[in-house]
Amino acid sequence: MKAQADTIAAISTAAGLGAIGLVRLSGSRAVAIVDSLFEGKTLAKQASHTAHFGNFYSSPVADEGRQLLDEVVVTLFLTGKSFTGEETVEISAHGSPYILHQILQACVAAGARSALPGEFTQRAFLNGKMDLAQAEAVGDLIAAENKASHHIALNQMKGSVSTELAHLRDKLINFTALIELELDFGEEDVEFADRTALSHLVQELKSAIQKLIQSFEYGNALKNGVPVAIIGLPNAGKSTLLNALLQEERAIVSDIAGTTRDAIEETINIEGISFRFIDTAGIRQTDDVIEAIGVERAKQKVRQALVVIHLYDQPDTLLEDLQEDLSNKIVFSLRSKADGATEAAPRLSVEERFHHFSISVKTGFQLELLKQALVLHFKHQQHQNAVVITNVRHKQALELAAEALEMVDREMAKQASGDLLSLYLKDALYHIGSITGKIDVDRDILGTIFGKFCIGK
Amino acid sequence: MKAQADTIAAISTAAGLGAIGLVRLSGSRAVAIVDSLFEGKTLAKQASHTAHFGNFYSSPVADEGRQLLDEVVVTLFLTGKSFTGEETVEISAHGSPYILHQILQACVAAGARSALPGEFTQRAFLNGKMDLAQAEAVGDLIAAENKASHHIALNQMKGSVSTELAHLRDKLINFTALIELELDFGEEDVEFADRTALSHLVQELKSAIQKLIQSFEYGNALKNGVPVAIIGLPNAGKSTLLNALLQEERAIVSDIAGTTRDAIEETINIEGISFRFIDTAGIRQTDDVIEAIGVERAKQKVRQALVVIHLYDQPDTLLEDLQEDLSNKIVFSLRSKADGATEAAPRLSVEERFHHFSISVKTGFQLELLKQALVLHFKHQQHQNAVVITNVRHKQALELAAEALEMVDREMAKQASGDLLSLYLKDALYHIGSITGKIDVDRDILGTIFGKFCIGK
Repeated sequence: MKAQADTIAAISTAAGLGAIGLVRLSGSRAVAIVDSLFEGKTLAKQASHTAHFGNFYSSPVADEGRQLLDEVVVTLFLTGKSFTGEETVEISAHGSPYILHQILQACVAAGARSALPGEFTQRAFLNGKMDLAQAEAVGDLIAAENKASHHIALNQMKGSVSTELAHLRDKLINFTALIELELDFGEEDVEFADRTALSHLVQELKSAIQKLIQSFEYGNALKNGVPVAIIGLPNAGKSTLLNALLQEERAIVSDIAGTTRDAIEETINIEGISFRFIDTAGIRQTDDVIEAIGVERAKQKVRQALVVIHLYDQPDTLLEDLQEDLSNKIVFSLRSKADGATEAAPRLSVEERFHHFSISVKTGFQLELLKQALVLHFKHQQHQNAVVITNVRHKQALELAAEALEMVDREMAKQASGDLLSLYLKDALYHIGSITGKIDVDRDILGTIFGKFCIGK
Repeated sequence: MKAQADTIAAISTAAGLGAIGLVRLSGSRAVAIVDSLFEGKTLAKQASHTAHFGNFYSSPVADEGRQLLDEVVVTLFLTGKSFTGEETVEISAHGSPYILHQILQACVAAGARSALPGEFTQRAFLNGKMDLAQAEAVGDLIAAENKASHHIALNQMKGSVSTELAHLRDKLINFTALIELELDFGEEDVEFADRTALSHLVQELKSAIQKLIQSFEYGNALKNGVPVAIIGLPNAGKSTLLNALLQEERAIVSDIAGTTRDAIEETINIEGISFRFIDTAGIRQTDDVIEAIGVERAKQKVRQALVVIHLYDQPDTLLEDLQEDLSNKIVFSLRSKADGATEAAPRLSVEERFHHFSISVKTGFQLELLKQALVLHFKHQQHQNAVVITNVRHKQALELAAEALEMVDREMAKQASGDLLSLYLKDALYHIGSITGKIDVDRDILGTIFGKFCIGK
């Protein structure tokens, strides 16, 4: 654990009036600083994880002009037992911005430094309490506004992404170490690393990385709302459907206090998953030919979507016109205004990407079916993707790692030398490691060599 | 201590995103409810004032569908050792409105009830942890936006008002008890209560209560900003002075994050005291006669003020015209635009209510003197009024108590009977007691009689 030189302090609760507000300090002098301003038990003599009631002053006891700032409860988390890994003190005061500001100022005057944004989490990372991917998830977790994104962020903070990556990385390190060993024995022409096994491993890693990269689209959709394009000719019932979905779910969306959503009229939360409906107004049909501009505009919207809902009253050619943009999308083709319809509910399978049934907003016919199908597809994906990437930085690092592995593949086919393979393998390791902050590739390989494969050299 | 039937829960930190947010529970099942949702140590076995890290779930362990909500730190405050006096648990989670809302919902589903506004403080009162005046001060403390109002609220919460009132009340109770005893021995015509001593006491109490009532104007001014009327004819330099004061102090006012002030351009914070400048535009002079409407308007503004600053370039008759409205005000009569002035700084005394000197905004001549004089007057009052009333309810109760004591005075002068005196004394006791919530007058008098004066009956 690296000890940071200074002790940082910040107001840790949201701005504004509340019953309680917290000022947090972290660093080697956290307890000493608070002790100098606190009248109660001597904090330096107290155990970790204990809370103490007392008076908090504007300046140390020795200062005659000191002012009582508040009655507070101070909680101690000693070195190695706190979120940051450092000595940490939380001062719980009345939730007045004035008081919290005064308490922070007193701590700064007594030797603390005002923390930079994210600095507590940064210290947790620097002290090895969490890796980079976990630290990034803390921010996502705080910003999460629905069940699905909360679930992903919490899993990532708990280390699901890190564990998956560590698994991939461990396998790569073993092989890289073997190849490095070969180089050391270069003149003796040994081959510790079985090329066939390496080739299999590279395929396995490429496929695992590709799966993680693909999870990004899904993870990002859950984080920011699943984009759904509703397409259809004028009067097909697009806005009626949207309004019906909104009316049913608005109460659920709006009962979470303190969350804000842009353009709430287009985001619908169904069973904890946000669906973001994309306006595709502008598709018009003249005679039987759909205007080129309208199609182009609709195509753009459809390309942004993960789900396309096609509504029609009279048969049209929209799906055919958009066909090339529909690959990989989940498509619902729905006959709307089926007010008197009594058809048997279709059996929907999440393995199928195309669904076709009738719907009536007026009678509610099969409206629930549509909602359940939307949810099921994403619950299925959630199930399929135990580990989900939501961070663009992670996705880019994985793409670079995949490229490096592609090079390993190519060079192996050319019977390339060990040192070239080692170069690309280290490149892949670097990119995978950069996600969690384990980028000291050479040290890890050396560790593996000297730890596991030491042959008496 | 009365045990409340149910356990209440609420999000206790301010709304919005923060690093940390708190959900608080209070009541006999607080630990049991959190224990059922928390994975870590068994909380029921832990000591008071200890903090425990663990996982927090959406529903009890037995529920297979339970979701992990967050990693939390739970702090316990056991019965008799908490703010409310009841078993209290604080759940410290990531400061996401979504997560805090989910944690609160989980607690409610597990048997807690959503707390009403102020209910934690109400329970502290009901459980005897603080009296009514102290409880009211908690709200004032959280809302305090400057040093002076913060100081008053904190003192009141610490019990300064309560102690002063308890002192007055104890004296009255003793005498009332003696008079009640006389009534019991009515036929024997004894006089336990010395009428001369009672008369002295009533005078003493009346004067003490009057002082408290008078402190309200000052306390209220410090709480909401000291009202200052700047009067002067057009071009006397009123807005120049205001702008100069604002420019100097604005930086200090605005560096407190999260505080909001209505019409900030007219409130100036000098050394922790807010001064609220009242616009007196509308005073015009036609020939030598000031328009009746203008004067009337200015008079209203002046009546609302505690301080009047009269600015003049050429001598005018404003102060004479407003004379009857200036009683009890602190008045500064300042010759403005004294740009080249070099007069020796006057010696100002806080005992004086009228000050007269020259000032120049342009050169800053004696501008600091004005500010210091404003501050000194209120620091002096702060010094004079160890106990300050800021609550209208308290002021009204004191006025009613003063009226009742006035009646005691009057009836004693008429040699009235003990039962009539007792009636008015109890009335005074009731009103004084209502401020801190001690309104069970008869029980207290009986307690005094049977506790202190028991004579073997």
